[in-house]
Amino acid sequence: MKTIKASIIGFGSVGQGVARVLLRKKEEFRSIGLEIMVVAVADSKTAVVDLEGVDLATVLERKESEGVVGDAHITGHDIIRDIEHDLVIETTPTNIDTGGVGLQNMLTAFSKKRHVVTSNKGPLALKYRELAALAEKSGCAFRFEATVGGAMPLLNLVRDTLAGNDVISIEGIFNGTCNYILTRMMEEHATYELMLAEAQELGIAEKDPAYDVEGIDTACKLVILANAIFGIDATYKDVQVTGISRITPEALMLAETDGYVIKLIGEVNKQRIQVAPRLVPIGHPLAVGGTMNVASLQTDLAGPVIVVGRGAGSIETASAILSDIVSICKE
Amino acid sequence: MKTIKASIIGFGSVGQGVARVLLRKKEEFRSIGLEIMVVAVADSKTAVVDLEGVDLATVLERKESEGVVGDAHITGHDIIRDIEHDLVIETTPTNIDTGGVGLQNMLTAFSKKRHVVTSNKGPLALKYRELAALAEKSGCAFRFEATVGGAMPLLNLVRDTLAGNDVISIEGIFNGTCNYILTRMMEEHATYELMLAEAQELGIAEKDPAYDVEGIDTACKLVILANAIFGIDATYKDVQVTGISRITPEALMLAETDGYVIKLIGEVNKQRIQVAPRLVPIGHPLAVGGTMNVASLQTDLAGPVIVVGRGAGSIETASAILSDIVSICKE
Repeated sequence: MKTIKASIIGFGSVGQGVARVLLRKKEEFRSIGLEIMVVAVADSKTAVVDLEGVDLATVLERKESEGVVGDAHITGHDIIRDIEHDLVIETTPTNIDTGGVGLQNMLTAFSKKRHVVTSNKGPLALKYRELAALAEKSGCAFRFEATVGGAMPLLNLVRDTLAGNDVISIEGIFNGTCNYILTRMMEEHATYELMLAEAQELGIAEKDPAYDVEGIDTACKLVILANAIFGIDATYKDVQVTGISRITPEALMLAETDGYVIKLIGEVNKQRIQVAPRLVPIGHPLAVGGTMNVASLQTDLAGPVIVVGRGAGSIETASAILSDIVSICKE
Repeated sequence: MKTIKASIIGFGSVGQGVARVLLRKKEEFRSIGLEIMVVAVADSKTAVVDLEGVDLATVLERKESEGVVGDAHITGHDIIRDIEHDLVIETTPTNIDTGGVGLQNMLTAFSKKRHVVTSNKGPLALKYRELAALAEKSGCAFRFEATVGGAMPLLNLVRDTLAGNDVISIEGIFNGTCNYILTRMMEEHATYELMLAEAQELGIAEKDPAYDVEGIDTACKLVILANAIFGIDATYKDVQVTGISRITPEALMLAETDGYVIKLIGEVNKQRIQVAPRLVPIGHPLAVGGTMNVASLQTDLAGPVIVVGRGAGSIETASAILSDIVSICKE
């Protein structure tokens, strides 16, 4: 039995999803000789530490009933620095202005020679190079499939499944909120404001929707792809960004008449990193509706490869984190 | 530098594609510390062996100009049995009645403790269990991404990129020839016979098209998925198969009026393995046209995941083989 000692730092929707998935898959992992033992969990206020393995079911229940994970008043950063373990599952919220606590958490994890798997885009959109260099220097794995496209396979698809291929370009829909709003505007011939309100009511859009609808979220994802796949030293400030808030129902109806839909498309290749609304022919592989994400890759050997999947969701994002963890355990 | 000694057994379109790709990527592999040294190549008549590394450019030229790879009159099977090397790249033609030479090649490779990467569906559609058991017993890797969907990622996608997920069902278009004929019948409102003739003229369909159009090729691919992903002990005779040769332009036009296309859909889950023409709504992710392949997976954590890619082609199939080789080298 190979045992990996892990911490879960950040216990919102994604962190809780990871805990649920680890509980659900416990026996399955044991049957392939793998135990992922969580020795610490931290949310923004409290923490729980047990070197023999935290009881995740209890932690999930307490988080739901009391809003906290435990009684220990230490931070996630304290845990990363002071508790002996192999892997930090970093799921604190994305902050693209400063990198947030996530940036310091990752830097400290690598300095303590712990692997990092994360869903947190902020530190990568700001400081990819620094983090990747430190991970390499420390001999640590640094994996972030969940940061781009949630459960839609992309980074590991390129790394493993398309190994040997050079990727020439990637374009796609990387934000489910924008895709939902544009799909609904088209279906209902309704205004942006109305469909944003609907998305907010359904929990698909945040109260402050700017991060999604202004294309910043997509830009962050493109920056991660630019660094990880194309080797471009970019931060999210290098991206040309136009969002969807100025799109009118009239523009969508005109597009439809000509056989097109309008989608917020992110594109990255060696020459440019761009987010903008674009006309996509109805029936085209990128013309995916609802909240789905899609990526179309051009490669030198395999030719075009397209993937579609759920870009968000607690369990879906946890699925991407899990595949990173399994991959690290196999190495 | 890690050096893997390999043979290429079978030097038709796929074998030549592998040779071209290995030549093209030689320096790239060296830069990541990997050398794939081909020590023997065999076609159905001749062979060339060089323990210091066969010159693939020369072999490709000779195959093109003279139709043979070398002067040695030994078989691929002799090479697998007698020449010391690590990896057999088995690209002989598929024979689903007996397994063809490929079956014996694979059995001998494992008995000599050599890894096998293959594009040959026949042995797997007939004797998956026996081959997988022998590979495991011998401690050998047995990889066959290229057998299902060519460059469309599927087996390794499930194995690596979706690691930790349980796959509940897979359905898709796994035969580019059928997809081409049905797409063209719809576009031209033309008969099956006419569009088959066009596909044959373009080299998309074989002179004897039965293997593709009667759904046998799709059935073989489903059997490989059934064994490798669902753990079902099936051979291609267990598959319910209906082909496309009885589909009329009238049926396609009627479908179109109602907003559907007709596609030859393969479906596999724990309950059934089936190939049949089905109505697919226009705009549905499975409604992919031309010669493309598509697979829609239902998974327990990631939810639905869809992949689209080229199902055939010399370099595209070689790309799938290459990803298997890289994966073995990493293990």
